Amino acid sequence: MADYEKMWEELGMNMELHDRLCQVLPTAFGDVYLSQENRPEGMGFWDFVVSGIHGIRPAELIEAQKNGQKVFGTFCVYVPDEVVIAAKGIVTGLCGGSQFWVPGGEKVLPKGTCPLIKASVGARLDKTCPFFRIADMYVGETTCDGKKKAWEILGEDVPMHIMDIPQMKREKDIVKWAGEIEEFKKVVEDFTGNKITVENLNEAIKIINNKRKALGRVFNCRKAAKVPISGKDALLMMQIAFFDDPVRCAEMCNKLADELEKRIADGVSVCPEGTKRILVTGTPLAIPNWKLHHIIETSGAIVVCEEMCTGTRYFENMVEEDLPTLEAQYMALARRYMKTNCACFTPNTARFDDILRMVDEYKVDGVIDVNLKFCNLYDTEGFLLERTLKEKGIPVLGIETDYTDADAEQLKTRIGAFIEMLG
Amino acid sequence: MADYEKMWEELGMNMELHDRLCQVLPTAFGDVYLSQENRPEGMGFWDFVVSGIHGIRPAELIEAQKNGQKVFGTFCVYVPDEVVIAAKGIVTGLCGGSQFWVPGGEKVLPKGTCPLIKASVGARLDKTCPFFRIADMYVGETTCDGKKKAWEILGEDVPMHIMDIPQMKREKDIVKWAGEIEEFKKVVEDFTGNKITVENLNEAIKIINNKRKALGRVFNCRKAAKVPISGKDALLMMQIAFFDDPVRCAEMCNKLADELEKRIADGVSVCPEGTKRILVTGTPLAIPNWKLHHIIETSGAIVVCEEMCTGTRYFENMVEEDLPTLEAQYMALARRYMKTNCACFTPNTARFDDILRMVDEYKVDGVIDVNLKFCNLYDTEGFLLERTLKEKGIPVLGIETDYTDADAEQLKTRIGAFIEMLG
Repeated sequence: MADYEKMWEELGMNMELHDRLCQVLPTAFGDVYLSQENRPEGMGFWDFVVSGIHGIRPAELIEAQKNGQKVFGTFCVYVPDEVVIAAKGIVTGLCGGSQFWVPGGEKVLPKGTCPLIKASVGARLDKTCPFFRIADMYVGETTCDGKKKAWEILGEDVPMHIMDIPQMKREKDIVKWAGEIEEFKKVVEDFTGNKITVENLNEAIKIINNKRKALGRVFNCRKAAKVPISGKDALLMMQIAFFDDPVRCAEMCNKLADELEKRIADGVSVCPEGTKRILVTGTPLAIPNWKLHHIIETSGAIVVCEEMCTGTRYFENMVEEDLPTLEAQYMALARRYMKTNCACFTPNTARFDDILRMVDEYKVDGVIDVNLKFCNLYDTEGFLLERTLKEKGIPVLGIETDYTDADAEQLKTRIGAFIEMLG
Repeated sequence: MADYEKMWEELGMNMELHDRLCQVLPTAFGDVYLSQENRPEGMGFWDFVVSGIHGIRPAELIEAQKNGQKVFGTFCVYVPDEVVIAAKGIVTGLCGGSQFWVPGGEKVLPKGTCPLIKASVGARLDKTCPFFRIADMYVGETTCDGKKKAWEILGEDVPMHIMDIPQMKREKDIVKWAGEIEEFKKVVEDFTGNKITVENLNEAIKIINNKRKALGRVFNCRKAAKVPISGKDALLMMQIAFFDDPVRCAEMCNKLADELEKRIADGVSVCPEGTKRILVTGTPLAIPNWKLHHIIETSGAIVVCEEMCTGTRYFENMVEEDLPTLEAQYMALARRYMKTNCACFTPNTARFDDILRMVDEYKVDGVIDVNLKFCNLYDTEGFLLERTLKEKGIPVLGIETDYTDADAEQLKTRIGAFIEMLG
């Protein structure tokens, strides 16, 4: 990625520290991804994106900025990309998934904060991620204690807009969320200088719906008896979806889905028949967090579905299209986003319904409920989830982990035993 | 407390486990409280209440229930007592402050939940606290991740109503909170069978305002150069205020304030001149959590103010009285409650303004910022608070602790060194 050094310098990055990250990533990716056999050809696109993760897309974003476009960095699947796209803005996910960034976050945040938040704050303050440097404005939300308060520290370093998400899901809460979307629309208009109209918002809704449908097509292929794509590859597609241009993302996912559908027709699978099928649920797996999938898929099982923000929560449910007024569009957006079931809501039993449905649809043999350390929300909800699954006779393994490799051996043992037990 | 055994049995309590609690409390209270010298006579009332903490007030509540009154258990200073009082209901605080209840909470909650929440859930599920048995309905709120999710578990065992508190403080958020208060009013009406009117709500507003003024009078006395009451005694008054009848509470606090004002006139103090004056801020100190105050006040300093839920946040700011409509009353209630500055809001810099004002008003020599383990909100905010105080040249010590005694020696050393440094 040497070609991008000048760009990184101009972004004010910490070159020395960033070099250290650049040295480890390719090896990590090679070990986890390129070692897989019989991968779909379509994954070549994502391999290419990762090979230049801090160069290719950042260079595109900077080019777009030169043409007057604004880049909005987000941290949550509840923030409506449609509003930004309508104003010719660009959205880039900013959730950090590497232990590399955690110590930087711990300089200002309690150690007892989840690694995702610590990594995100560390990536910004340590100046070791171009996406965090490029984003003109960050958009935060009040989904959890850790993020809600981290914005106060990040906000000293970068312009931030906060959306106050309701903590429940009654009709009036959906109306409140529509109000937050309307306010966000005004902020985006002011910041980009572009007016949001019924027409361009409708167009943006279609763009993002198309992206959702394309991601859904790939997930749909994972329901097949002969699984045509590994969980690791599907996860990578999801992780990059947060960073990529939404039109290209849809195009690439549709191309991949074409290939996977052909594989299904031809009976081509990435694993032997009888391989145990795992649904992973819980906290998100931000790039480059591939630890859990790698352990599962080198322990004789395959991940067929992620009920996660980096999974079904990101693309299920469409926004109603072709509505005649902005007010109707805000409500349609609010309704769609509030269908997403995150543990930040109380109650959140609809998530259990989702998981039970997916266990059925994806023909799941066992569920792994993974919690990022110090996420009290998913940890508490996990108690109720695991009880619900056990009552239904569905095997479930609860796991707590972070971004370090310290627990890899222990996880291998536990996950290996769980998969064996499924036999 | 043997007289109350029959009552406890009828409440379905775990008698054997509860006996163990009854055995330790009197000694703990004696060691911490009765060892103090020159206490105000007015404290006799609170000593009496504590001596029968699980008997006297519970018996009153049961008597009230026999007369058709309903008891509402609450966990947060944002839940408006006025609404319950207007419907002839009774409010009792339910926050647990003893390590005794923590293991019961840990059976169903993550260990990484704050001790206050674990103790509260444990006290209910282990059946070792009469207040948790007596309350007909619990009222929860969405102030923090831990509580928000704990309600889902508690709600399986007891009727619960949840109020969704906004996470920010814009005008529309105050309107939203007024809406939650209106909904709560309907719930209370249905549950008690009593109609809430402009008149009885206005009367309730006055009752609670009077209680606030009385608590404020006592706190006001702590501003005197010669401090007429220990921090421990003031804290005990605050803790019991959450449980007691509000009219009696005001009466007793006013009586105590009369005595303290006389002490000030007479130059009577509980500590030698020059004793260092400490403001304690952070997470609440629920009864019987006296650890921190005891350490501070046996290390040569005196606590003159608590910027806490069990402190100024509970009684500062009055609700506007004599408003002509229920809608106006909901808004007046919402405005008053939203003036309280808890770390659950973002941003919450008004809390820093409060603390700086109190440092001045209470002539504070040093601030101790205490965080209950695993409270991410106050922990993160503490970083910004401590920086703010240091910038103003105000000495500050940040402490993290829980309900165990394991860190008592370490705290003594750190607090002792801090107080010495103030000299």
